[in-house]
Amino acid sequence: MVKVAVLGASGYTGGELLRLLSLHPRIKLVAVSSGQSAGQRIDTLFPNLKGRLSLTLEPLDLNHLADKADLFFLALPHTTAMPVAARLIEKKKRVIDLSADFRLKDPKTYERWYKTPHLHPGLLAQACYGLPELHRNAIKSARIVANPGCYPTGALLGLLPLFQKPLVDSGRIIIDAKSGISGAGRSPSQATHFPEAHEAISAYSIGRHRHLPEIEQELSLLAKKKVAVTFTPHLVPINRGILSTIYIKLTKKIETEEVVKLFQDFYEGDPFVRVLPSGELPNTRNVQGSNDGHIGLVVDDHANRGSATLVIVTAIDNLVKGAAGQAIQNMNLMMGYEESLGLTAPGLFP
Amino acid sequence: MVKVAVLGASGYTGGELLRLLSLHPRIKLVAVSSGQSAGQRIDTLFPNLKGRLSLTLEPLDLNHLADKADLFFLALPHTTAMPVAARLIEKKKRVIDLSADFRLKDPKTYERWYKTPHLHPGLLAQACYGLPELHRNAIKSARIVANPGCYPTGALLGLLPLFQKPLVDSGRIIIDAKSGISGAGRSPSQATHFPEAHEAISAYSIGRHRHLPEIEQELSLLAKKKVAVTFTPHLVPINRGILSTIYIKLTKKIETEEVVKLFQDFYEGDPFVRVLPSGELPNTRNVQGSNDGHIGLVVDDHANRGSATLVIVTAIDNLVKGAAGQAIQNMNLMMGYEESLGLTAPGLFP
Amino acid sequence: MVKVAVLGASGYTGGELLRLLSLHPRIKLVAVSSGQSAGQRIDTLFPNLKGRLSLTLEPLDLNHLADKADLFFLALPHTTAMPVAARLIEKKKRVIDLSADFRLKDPKTYERWYKTPHLHPGLLAQACYGLPELHRNAIKSARIVANPGCYPTGALLGLLPLFQKPLVDSGRIIIDAKSGISGAGRSPSQATHFPEAHEAISAYSIGRHRHLPEIEQELSLLAKKKVAVTFTPHLVPINRGILSTIYIKLTKKIETEEVVKLFQDFYEGDPFVRVLPSGELPNTRNVQGSNDGHIGLVVDDHANRGSATLVIVTAIDNLVKGAAGQAIQNMNLMMGYEESLGLTAPGLFP
Amino acid sequence: MVKVAVLGASGYTGGELLRLLSLHPRIKLVAVSSGQSAGQRIDTLFPNLKGRLSLTLEPLDLNHLADKADLFFLALPHTTAMPVAARLIEKKKRVIDLSADFRLKDPKTYERWYKTPHLHPGLLAQACYGLPELHRNAIKSARIVANPGCYPTGALLGLLPLFQKPLVDSGRIIIDAKSGISGAGRSPSQATHFPEAHEAISAYSIGRHRHLPEIEQELSLLAKKKVAVTFTPHLVPINRGILSTIYIKLTKKIETEEVVKLFQDFYEGDPFVRVLPSGELPNTRNVQGSNDGHIGLVVDDHANRGSATLVIVTAIDNLVKGAAGQAIQNMNLMMGYEESLGLTAPGLFP
Repeated sequence: MVKVAVLGASGYTGGELLRLLSLHPRIKLVAVSSGQSAGQRIDTLFPNLKGRLSLTLEPLDLNHLADKADLFFLALPHTTAMPVAARLIEKKKRVIDLSADFRLKDPKTYERWYKTPHLHPGLLAQACYGLPELHRNAIKSARIVANPGCYPTGALLGLLPLFQKPLVDSGRIIIDAKSGISGAGRSPSQATHFPEAHEAISAYSIGRHRHLPEIEQELSLLAKKKVAVTFTPHLVPINRGILSTIYIKLTKKIETEEVVKLFQDFYEGDPFVRVLPSGELPNTRNVQGSNDGHIGLVVDDHANRGSATLVIVTAIDNLVKGAAGQAIQNMNLMMGYEESLGLTAPGLFP
Repeated sequence: MVKVAVLGASGYTGGELLRLLSLHPRIKLVAVSSGQSAGQRIDTLFPNLKGRLSLTLEPLDLNHLADKADLFFLALPHTTAMPVAARLIEKKKRVIDLSADFRLKDPKTYERWYKTPHLHPGLLAQACYGLPELHRNAIKSARIVANPGCYPTGALLGLLPLFQKPLVDSGRIIIDAKSGISGAGRSPSQATHFPEAHEAISAYSIGRHRHLPEIEQELSLLAKKKVAVTFTPHLVPINRGILSTIYIKLTKKIETEEVVKLFQDFYEGDPFVRVLPSGELPNTRNVQGSNDGHIGLVVDDHANRGSATLVIVTAIDNLVKGAAGQAIQNMNLMMGYEESLGLTAPGLFP
Repeated sequence: MVKVAVLGASGYTGGELLRLLSLHPRIKLVAVSSGQSAGQRIDTLFPNLKGRLSLTLEPLDLNHLADKADLFFLALPHTTAMPVAARLIEKKKRVIDLSADFRLKDPKTYERWYKTPHLHPGLLAQACYGLPELHRNAIKSARIVANPGCYPTGALLGLLPLFQKPLVDSGRIIIDAKSGISGAGRSPSQATHFPEAHEAISAYSIGRHRHLPEIEQELSLLAKKKVAVTFTPHLVPINRGILSTIYIKLTKKIETEEVVKLFQDFYEGDPFVRVLPSGELPNTRNVQGSNDGHIGLVVDDHANRGSATLVIVTAIDNLVKGAAGQAIQNMNLMMGYEESLGLTAPGLFP
Repeated sequence: MVKVAVLGASGYTGGELLRLLSLHPRIKLVAVSSGQSAGQRIDTLFPNLKGRLSLTLEPLDLNHLADKADLFFLALPHTTAMPVAARLIEKKKRVIDLSADFRLKDPKTYERWYKTPHLHPGLLAQACYGLPELHRNAIKSARIVANPGCYPTGALLGLLPLFQKPLVDSGRIIIDAKSGISGAGRSPSQATHFPEAHEAISAYSIGRHRHLPEIEQELSLLAKKKVAVTFTPHLVPINRGILSTIYIKLTKKIETEEVVKLFQDFYEGDPFVRVLPSGELPNTRNVQGSNDGHIGLVVDDHANRGSATLVIVTAIDNLVKGAAGQAIQNMNLMMGYEESLGLTAPGLFP
């Protein structure tokens, strides 16, 4: 049993952590905090937890909180997570940070994209990018795990297996991602006001979304050279889910079945990633509420243009595999638990 | 560990049973059957189960199936469940029937509403109406449990506590229910075709929905006299959930807080029903995917008309508390397990 | 050609007025104003108007605006419309007020429900409640038309024909209304944040919604005695539409067909109200974007309780017949135009 | 006044033609036909038309129908439109065919994609591809206009202006399109059953959708060489709208503003296409119910890879600009009417 706390528990990521932690057999949830909602019961903010969790949100006071738990989930806004993590690390605690503060290895890249200097660049070396399918071993012993963004999780799951082999042209990767609206967080805004978001599809932040440098960093590490991608996020009127449609130029002739085999071999034994057989395509509906990632693959050579395009489609739940579920998967690795412990609930269908 | 089988597993109720059974620690799922989908893997029909359940659907052949399991969930269409249940009872099996075939005590009422004679009227006396909040003890020893309809579950949870005391006029109960579209089942139809059901609200089957006699039967038993209700079901564009708004005339002056107290006392210790404090109202969103029922109460006396109206609002997930979850709750009672075993997952929010 | 201005044009009601006015052949739109969005082009706020309207929003300065137009639509928040209307009336202008400020005849009722004294009680006598199906003649010559609320429009259309005849018990009317979320206005809030409003149904403000006194006022006038109603509004996840399900006790035996006939006779010649034949029920989907009101009727006597219940279901688009369309219908009456001029576009289906 | 008939009027395209024709000042709708729904009133199938159109659907008997009208809209399934069009052309009628039967110039391409030989290859030369922004003059005198598919309309509007100038690499065009579900037609199916299509996003028919050869044909004509595209359609849970996100490699350095200018010049004077200024992006919500096409443009050079990618986003309503509205636009051109006659209604927002 590990004692855990969730700091910044009033948003969707926080609420999802609480939902999933309430199902985990080897944790004890000892504290939850929230700046703006301190003093409220957690099941007032998340009425789905009525009868299940009755903790009261505390203010974010580390003097008081730091000694309560052994492992801390930070669901704080980026830039505010940095000092909290630093303080907890000093106290020999382990931290899973769901903000962007420890994802980018290069503090200059952080500053360019987040418009503020990194306060603890020294800690970046200690932080591990928490995508288990890529950094499983490093996560086990990490003190800070930087939980990946939702878009990078969906994109990277679809690209990881390709960088082992000289199969694709990494110079022209296009990621067209469609996200449910919980990805925008819990604060109301004009763009997420129901009548404006419903019956609506739109692209936004083309080529300048903050999840872009994360994707490029991890692909560049894999490719051992600088990889740039074209990334277009879209808002679609569902609550949960990201469908990422990825286009990459193949450099040699290959059948869909062979690519499927390559992906299945890569993800052999992985508890959450399902590579669909040729002819099947993923649907966000099939993973909602679960920590699963579904991947479908199609080699599009209809034009016989010499080189074909590989189309990769991945589906995840942005709040689970794209945030809270992956954080718990990381905790399981850090604690030496079975990787899927507490995360085996299937998605809700329909 | 009890060996269970799900007969008629290709619809939404069947799929939901499988999802929930995959989380239950004390069952062994030994067989699943489907007339039309026999031979298919269950995770082809329900892709959310990929990596979790890989059984193949068998044809509905009782010679083969009846010996495999000890307890059978029947998710068959009404009228077809009757002979299957009869055969299983003969073989000393226990049966939880999710169809309407054993819900109505009076075979003539069954015939009037379902337009076909009841084939096994003798078994009706053995069948127990499976609303645990009303018939908990009888369910424990029942051989056939008739799992309630989704609308009756939502309506009865909101009315049960009132029939203990001389508080309401049972002669004029109005139930205005709003259901998500999964309640219409998995077969496509014009009315449930996405473009016609989306951005649409409509009433249907006013005063002649087949769930009406169930509601009246149970209320009449409670009231010890014939109770008739006005019942209007509506289709609303959500996947899961029923919100029932119930209007009943109060016969004496009473404050909302007192009614809340009366309901809280009635449901004290119940593992799934949450009576909300005065001022809070339920939302289907807060119970989706869970076996919870939320109840809100308002005494509307704004008009000072002498007698006020009590407005009761209940929210359930039609596929869980309104079908598969309640069936597993009944199984827990029948097997002497803890009533909430395997059913403690909170709803998905958002 | 009448010169019109829309004051308070940045919300949904304002935008809908502009959409409909852009189709009207006998008006000239001379000015639009908005407090918070002054200086912006109207098609920035309403991108559907791109290429159609390019006016710029002006500040609400009556010194400047009052002389520009002959007829003013006020889509201002309630309490702020009062002084504007008073000033315009002084200047001999005609006013259609879409706020609640001139709907209630009794200034004390206004004060009780809107928590502020009425500033111009003297004008209330001049104001006409703008439901054309009820006050057609009075509207023609009114200087101020108080455009009805969306819920009252849906409810009253379903009740008007009944008050001619000794057919119903006006002492126990229940109105269960389900509204799309545009009814909550354009300002973002937690309750209308997409992930919380989607896949959700809830009741709110039971027995204390501000549209209640309007409904009771008009019914009391018709009944020539004080009529009180039980009114429960609900939020459902659609953009546009209100479905009102109304329950009223019949005092004599009557068939559904007879009630249909009574309604059809009452609405004979009305350009927008369609009384559906027995067996058909309305759907908000069929009226979205149009000024139509659809009405379905069912006498529910399944219980043979002596007295039956009449269930009336009405569907309107809350932004059109429930707001902007009705305002233009009122303008047509005031100007002596054909009542349906500019309002003949059918709803969008699907 | 031209006498028009709509053959195959019971689907969504047929219904949308009727909705729009009801608003057109210079047509007389003389007949509507439907194979399966003959004998029904049109407002039973399309309740939004109640009080507006009361024609009864006739069987598709050309002996009877051909003489009634001068211009025929064919909203028939592909393969069945061919013989009807041939017969009408023989009778000197003019035809706007909304099926795919006359869109592909090469009968072999038709046969490859539609799995059936073309029955009237001789007529293909007479048929004009009905995208007014591309073939305005040819349409004016055409006897058969082949109304484009919905996906090709959205894609081509975003690509037409680029083929005038040596700016892009036409060898690697990626079209990622997201369609509302009305695009799948009015017949119910598992994939369009509400609970399975709602809260769901999925790709389908990757690289093998039947709209692909249309897009390639028109681009190849423009480029004067064979152009192949990668085309991935997606289903998203809205009723109406297609958002097409198009990726094309730029061959020279250029700023977003310059591309915007190039597009604005190209569409100068066009009544329906709006090129948005740099920084604005389209949303399907802004065009629903209207014949507008909105286009947004972004040069993505964040990676300084030498060559940048141009991202083009277009939004149309698939039933209007993607089908019925464009058909009426074509009719206006054929009849010498103003191109936008009857099509000026703005979209419904929200």
